Amino acid sequence: MKLLEDRILKDGKVLEGNILRVDSFVNHMMDTVLMDELAKEMYNRYKDCKVTKVLTVEASGIGFAYAVARLFACPMVFAKKSRSSNVQGDVYTSPVDSFTHGKTYNIIVSKDYITKDDSVLVIDDFLALGNALKGLISILEQAGASLVGAGTIIEKGYQKGGDGLREKGVRVESLAIIDEMDGKNIKFRPEN
Amino acid sequence: MKLLEDRILKDGKVLEGNILRVDSFVNHMMDTVLMDELAKEMYNRYKDCKVTKVLTVEASGIGFAYAVARLFACPMVFAKKSRSSNVQGDVYTSPVDSFTHGKTYNIIVSKDYITKDDSVLVIDDFLALGNALKGLISILEQAGASLVGAGTIIEKGYQKGGDGLREKGVRVESLAIIDEMDGKNIKFRPEN
Repeated sequence: MKLLEDRILKDGKVLEGNILRVDSFVNHMMDTVLMDELAKEMYNRYKDCKVTKVLTVEASGIGFAYAVARLFACPMVFAKKSRSSNVQGDVYTSPVDSFTHGKTYNIIVSKDYITKDDSVLVIDDFLALGNALKGLISILEQAGASLVGAGTIIEKGYQKGGDGLREKGVRVESLAIIDEMDGKNIKFRPEN
Repeated sequence: MKLLEDRILKDGKVLEGNILRVDSFVNHMMDTVLMDELAKEMYNRYKDCKVTKVLTVEASGIGFAYAVARLFACPMVFAKKSRSSNVQGDVYTSPVDSFTHGKTYNIIVSKDYITKDDSVLVIDDFLALGNALKGLISILEQAGASLVGAGTIIEKGYQKGGDGLREKGVRVESLAIIDEMDGKNIKFRPEN
C-alpha cells in the first residue's frame, strides 16, 4: 500500500541490527488518520469473508485491531500476555517466543470470547517470524473456531514468518512487506 | 450515559471483593459498536477544547483511546509499562501502584511524543483510585504539556480517585460513575 510505504520511508528509522522503528506513527504513538486508512484497506481485502471477531494480542496490536473490527462492526478480542507458566481458569493459552524481547510468554484468551461458531480475522501490527500469529492461530484451533486469515501492517518478508504461514495455506495480508532492509535502503515487495 | 449504564447492568458481573468485571464488552473483548458510541460521547464533552494528543496506558485503555483520538483526528500515544525500575533512554517515567495487581510498575513515554506544545486528553477504561491517571498527568507535567482533562469509561466513585482529581481542579469525565456496589446492586451517580 503506497500510502504506508511512503510513510515508512519518510518516518521509519532503521536502527543497528536491522531493527525498523515506526514508533512515531504505528506503535507508541499512533497516527489515527493513517491507521483508519490502513484499516479501510484491510477491511476491503477481507470484506467478502464472514468475520465474526477480530483477535489480536496486547499491547501494540490493539489500536489497529480496533480500527479494523469497527469496520466489520464485530467485537475485538485481545489476548493477554503472562510471563507465568501457571495460567489458571477457563482459558485457552499458547506459548509465544518474542523475537523483540528474547523471552517466552504465554498468551491467554478466555474460553467465553472465542467459540467454535466464530470466524476470526487475526490482526497484529508487525509480522516477523510469525510467532505471535502462530500463537493466536493455536488458540483458534483450541477453540474450534474458523480462521479467516491474518492481517498485519508491516511484514518483514526477509524473516519468512509470513511466507511460512502462506505455505501452510493461511491467508496473510500485510499492507507493506519489506523484502530487504540494509541500512537506510528499504526494498518493498511489489503488490500483486 | 444511559446506554452504558444499561449495558453494565445487563452484562457486568460483580465478583467477590466488590470487583466489577466488564470483560465481555469493555476489556478483553471490546464491543466496537458500543465503544464507538462511548467515544462520540467523550468527544462531544471535550470537542470545544483544543486536543492535540490523546494519552493512555497499555493495555486495556488503548482501544477506547484510539476510538476517541480518531474523532479528534489527532495522534494517540500509549505509555508503556515496565516492572523494571531501571528505565533508560530519552523518556518520561512515573511509578504507578496497581490496585488490581497489587504491584508497582513504571509507565514510560518517549520524550519525542509528548511536548510542551501539546494539549492532552488523558484516557483510560477504568478509574478507581486514580493512580494510572495521576501517573499520566505526572508525565504531562514533566513534558510541560497542557492537561485538557481526563476521560474514562467507568469510574468507581466510591473509591474516590475521580473526586480527588476533581478537587485538585482536574476536569474528569466518566461515562458511568458507580457510587455504590453491593453484590448485584449497582447504584450510579446521577448525571448533571
